[in-house]
Amino acid sequence: MSEITSIALDVMGGDNAPVEMIKGALEAIKTEPSMKVFLVGKEEVITKELANYQYNNEQIQIVPASEVIETAEPPVNAIRKKKDSSIVVGMKMVKEGAADAFVSAGSSGAILVGGQVIVGRIKGVERPPLAPLIPTEKGVTLLIDCGANVDARPSHLVQFAKMGAIYMEHVVGIQNPKVGIVNIGAEEEKGNALVKETFPLLKAEKDIHFIGSVEAREIPHGQADVVVCEAFAGNIILKLYEGVGAVLIDKIKEGMLSTLRSKIGAFLVKPALKATLKTFDASEYGGAPLLGLNGLVVKTHGSSKAKEVRNTLLQCVTFKKQKINDKIRESIQRDSMSSESYK
Amino acid sequence: MSEITSIALDVMGGDNAPVEMIKGALEAIKTEPSMKVFLVGKEEVITKELANYQYNNEQIQIVPASEVIETAEPPVNAIRKKKDSSIVVGMKMVKEGAADAFVSAGSSGAILVGGQVIVGRIKGVERPPLAPLIPTEKGVTLLIDCGANVDARPSHLVQFAKMGAIYMEHVVGIQNPKVGIVNIGAEEEKGNALVKETFPLLKAEKDIHFIGSVEAREIPHGQADVVVCEAFAGNIILKLYEGVGAVLIDKIKEGMLSTLRSKIGAFLVKPALKATLKTFDASEYGGAPLLGLNGLVVKTHGSSKAKEVRNTLLQCVTFKKQKINDKIRESIQRDSMSSESYK
Repeated sequence: MSEITSIALDVMGGDNAPVEMIKGALEAIKTEPSMKVFLVGKEEVITKELANYQYNNEQIQIVPASEVIETAEPPVNAIRKKKDSSIVVGMKMVKEGAADAFVSAGSSGAILVGGQVIVGRIKGVERPPLAPLIPTEKGVTLLIDCGANVDARPSHLVQFAKMGAIYMEHVVGIQNPKVGIVNIGAEEEKGNALVKETFPLLKAEKDIHFIGSVEAREIPHGQADVVVCEAFAGNIILKLYEGVGAVLIDKIKEGMLSTLRSKIGAFLVKPALKATLKTFDASEYGGAPLLGLNGLVVKTHGSSKAKEVRNTLLQCVTFKKQKINDKIRESIQRDSMSSESYK
Repeated sequence: MSEITSIALDVMGGDNAPVEMIKGALEAIKTEPSMKVFLVGKEEVITKELANYQYNNEQIQIVPASEVIETAEPPVNAIRKKKDSSIVVGMKMVKEGAADAFVSAGSSGAILVGGQVIVGRIKGVERPPLAPLIPTEKGVTLLIDCGANVDARPSHLVQFAKMGAIYMEHVVGIQNPKVGIVNIGAEEEKGNALVKETFPLLKAEKDIHFIGSVEAREIPHGQADVVVCEAFAGNIILKLYEGVGAVLIDKIKEGMLSTLRSKIGAFLVKPALKATLKTFDASEYGGAPLLGLNGLVVKTHGSSKAKEVRNTLLQCVTFKKQKINDKIRESIQRDSMSSESYK
């Protein structure tokens, strides 16, 4: 029998909690017999919802948590004060080794703060980046960092690149992933101060397959498998992706429904179009890991439904099986040893 | 008779030069009798092309320029060395008052450098921003700055906001335009160091209608009429807009042509769809002005066709009629006077 992956799932976070969270968990354990899911949240709510399903109860366990951190709450305060919230309780399970991973669709801020404060960083990791997968023409690209680490330093970006490449290769399964840095031109001398300083460091890095600068225009075409940037730029990229996509699809719907002729056409086109657009949907690939922590923390979209929750839970199993954190630890520590030898 | 607007047009720049440049100019003079266009470039090429058309030759004049600056050339060098290039010759006409404006679809770098070095800044303007219009759900938004001014300071961003608001109100015709700053969250305390420093300055600025932070997701929805950011972020936004749009439209075409049923649907949907997507096409609105110069310099897309060239030339007429540079001068100098009074 293969090793068990145990995951604490925040049942209270996200727009579709608790229904879709629980549904996703039950779908995931059915797919993956070596998974155990701790449903963290209000006991009576979970018990009531679980009563609607048949499932293998060896794979499911309720962990009571009486409080909920709201998205609008200042994160540092919320983590400190709400000791019995689903986020704090779930993260403590990871910290104490009771769970391998924590998954939440709740407050991004609280997850980022809690990840650092409760779960803690791997020794040598300067900042844990949040790394969502974004859809591209060819498949999917890891965008690292989209967290709260604005005003990053070059050494942070180099670590992001290394951690991102490990994740992309061993969790997503892209051999020797191409790593690029977001820039405003393809030439090496272009960029702001941060990019200019980081570029030669990435170029010198033996562990990664660095392909140089990536212009924002090329990201959706899938030019790089790992796209490195500081969080302010990463946040712009992630959110603009959503925004442009949403507005364009609205415009297309509007166009299709504008005349009788086009309405008939829309009816005929719909099934094929739906199937193609599904390939441009990041939720197929699960949530965004917060890398470099002593354990795994994954943030899924606030609007996650069962499918994304299930995919995120399955992603946690691969993360454990592939010993991603051991690989990150080795890579980061190899690096700090080699820089020590220069001292 | 109304005052003449004279415009130097770089006939040699862009992917579709000289054919579409000249075609655009001839369409523009037909629409606007108070416009005179100087066609700057290789005389024999222009003469040959002009021979294909009938036009009012009082509105067209050839200005010979024997050299062409290529997009790949290092801009500073190119501006210095190629004294007889269409960009240098055209910009000198603006500098010397022979033309009100210069329009080019050529090398962005050379246009940005030439604008500062040859045409020169309005007194008090710290940096001239490049400000393209981007399409939104509701119409169009001015994105300022997308130029080469990376690592900007808060005072630059405040000037961008003021110049952008003037342009949007008097050239595009949006009354009391809403000005927002690109940020990673809606709250005032969010952001990187630059945004945090700039936010209170914009809030205190009486000349503009500041609405606070704008998340990248909201830009395509048209939340603000003027979106302020430093050039690195602006470049990401502009190029990602193009990239996501292009990939999504490819995916949609692919979906529409994937089955026989969908192919029939696509045929029916096409005309209505084309009309709607046209409203999401920035080329309808002309090129990107480089604001804050002693004269007007406008960069149009490298891929510009006659329609965009025509619209850009018409935009120059509005710019002159509305005395935009006088308004910018007053606004910037009022500001520097009031800050002097604090000294």
